[in-house]
Amino acid sequence: MKKHNFSAGPSILPQEVFEKASQAVLNFNNSGLSILEISHRSKDFIAVMEEAQALALELLGLTGKGYQALFLQGGASLEFLRIPYNLMKENGKAAYLDTGTWASGAIKQAKAFGETVVVASSKDDNYNFIPKGYEIPTDIDYFHCTSNNTIFGTQMKEFPKTDAPLVCDMSSDIFSKDIDYSQFSIIYAGAQKNMGPAGTTLVVIKEEILGKTGRNIPAMLDYSQHIAKESMYNTPPVFAVYTSMLTLQWLKNLGGVEAIEKMNETKANLLYKEIDRNPLFKGVAKAEDRSLMNVTFTLNNEEHQPIFDELWKAAGISGLNGHRSVGGYRASIYNAMPLESVQVLVDAMKELENKI
Amino acid sequence: MKKHNFSAGPSILPQEVFEKASQAVLNFNNSGLSILEISHRSKDFIAVMEEAQALALELLGLTGKGYQALFLQGGASLEFLRIPYNLMKENGKAAYLDTGTWASGAIKQAKAFGETVVVASSKDDNYNFIPKGYEIPTDIDYFHCTSNNTIFGTQMKEFPKTDAPLVCDMSSDIFSKDIDYSQFSIIYAGAQKNMGPAGTTLVVIKEEILGKTGRNIPAMLDYSQHIAKESMYNTPPVFAVYTSMLTLQWLKNLGGVEAIEKMNETKANLLYKEIDRNPLFKGVAKAEDRSLMNVTFTLNNEEHQPIFDELWKAAGISGLNGHRSVGGYRASIYNAMPLESVQVLVDAMKELENKI
Repeated sequence: MKKHNFSAGPSILPQEVFEKASQAVLNFNNSGLSILEISHRSKDFIAVMEEAQALALELLGLTGKGYQALFLQGGASLEFLRIPYNLMKENGKAAYLDTGTWASGAIKQAKAFGETVVVASSKDDNYNFIPKGYEIPTDIDYFHCTSNNTIFGTQMKEFPKTDAPLVCDMSSDIFSKDIDYSQFSIIYAGAQKNMGPAGTTLVVIKEEILGKTGRNIPAMLDYSQHIAKESMYNTPPVFAVYTSMLTLQWLKNLGGVEAIEKMNETKANLLYKEIDRNPLFKGVAKAEDRSLMNVTFTLNNEEHQPIFDELWKAAGISGLNGHRSVGGYRASIYNAMPLESVQVLVDAMKELENKI
Repeated sequence: MKKHNFSAGPSILPQEVFEKASQAVLNFNNSGLSILEISHRSKDFIAVMEEAQALALELLGLTGKGYQALFLQGGASLEFLRIPYNLMKENGKAAYLDTGTWASGAIKQAKAFGETVVVASSKDDNYNFIPKGYEIPTDIDYFHCTSNNTIFGTQMKEFPKTDAPLVCDMSSDIFSKDIDYSQFSIIYAGAQKNMGPAGTTLVVIKEEILGKTGRNIPAMLDYSQHIAKESMYNTPPVFAVYTSMLTLQWLKNLGGVEAIEKMNETKANLLYKEIDRNPLFKGVAKAEDRSLMNVTFTLNNEEHQPIFDELWKAAGISGLNGHRSVGGYRASIYNAMPLESVQVLVDAMKELENKI
């Protein structure tokens, strides 16, 4: 039986993507070859890479606006290093917003490069809100933030205005809503939430901001070299790019970020409404900063845990346990999660109330 | 119709690996979840990672000898950078053997770190042989070589003796023969030839050689940090690791490197014998340095090219064109290539002779 997969990442993808990807492992494009054995220099794969890049820009509304899309390896963690390498001048300065474990990881890497100002942090409250009203220095090379905090279930609803390039780690909410993506100079995202399997990272770059640091950047860490080689500086992760392309095709056919945003709001509202209504549960994140992607909540009485765990497991739900640094539960309801699966979870929560 | 795939990489994998991987994309381990949507922290995936690591060490004969196996991202090209970062002391020195395009790429990255001695090079002869009789300095931090040169079709049959740690890029011949792998301190290999799909790199490290440089290494480039996190410093490329595990299982069931070496010799002998016998063809690499993995050859008369190309394509062969820097043909006959497919190629070569 197919599970209702609430995992935080790697996470659910559309069922049609699983079916097409499975078929391509046996026979890709009716070529008599598996997608796993084709040359990345073959016409068929170059077409895949080009379509994935074009779809990424199109869905973000960035086509023809001076942006390049790269499918790299190493996860968002390697971008934590590439960002300062490519943007922080020698003796330069960067500013970061600290909204969680991953934001904090990005800050750590930047500090090894140069002056790194943390403009605000919600760490003292275990990152259960998004800081606001902070000031961003004017003499910085870039400002970095994390749009959605997978572990804590918070999400930025607005982004600050700054004259410096705005860099955003969107690993867990890219392609989930219709915002002005052109306010960012760099957007990056590990594929394994809203885009594809683990193994590739989408990096979208406004090309004009590169080449200004005076640093000697190692080839594999240099965005300009990856752009010059059209995202094939070395062998790309063929299958992960292919599966990402399938997911982006699915999203486009569905109506793009505008359509998925409505569906994501419906799903999140259904679940948050139950958390707020059901006297056995409470939400973790501050209401105004609640994430539409990762819904964190706890039981008011821990003694109910064994009964609730039995209920949701019996309902075919998996991946609901919270991250160890928060505890409780986390329902990740990414783009590919059907409303019906969220309803199954809500029903389990109601059933607990009836049983107690 | 299934093709005879002679691609240099990504390249052929065993048919049973394609079938199992395809099934796991639909339903992994009968879990009701796709291998693409499972958490890398799930019990089932941790078991996959551990088995892949254990099999890699076992097949190389390195179990219990102080080695660790990592499945990283970024391809061999990122290891070109990690190697000097982790092994070259501040103001240190390394020695490299230049046997081809990839060796040369590794040298370029090392030079940005410190003194890098190239002990010998076959570049002036378009890398058609493996230099021998060179001297390795004694005051180096490590010696680096490339065991098999995919583009040029040469392969090292012996490795030099040195007191310094021996580091080897085995991307295109790892697991292909039974040698003493314990002579190396670091072995690394992009998966996409003998191990799995593009998207992960196996790095096998003698742990005692780490931590001696005095350098401040960024987390994602630091082998010690990846070892401490058991190859899950961040989300690993789940599917690429799973598929690599399947291929290593296949190799073990077949009898390991000893068994595959005999099969690889049989395949290579069949093809080289025809190249040497057939008056229409000649080999590219010096005979004593011929690779058992990548067989490079040309037509003596270029006018025969259209007829030969038609013949092998009609026989269901793909991926036979040589690399642009060598020309002619390249038959990559990795572990998973069946003898029958090599026979199909030999038959096409004989058929050309009959037609001319």
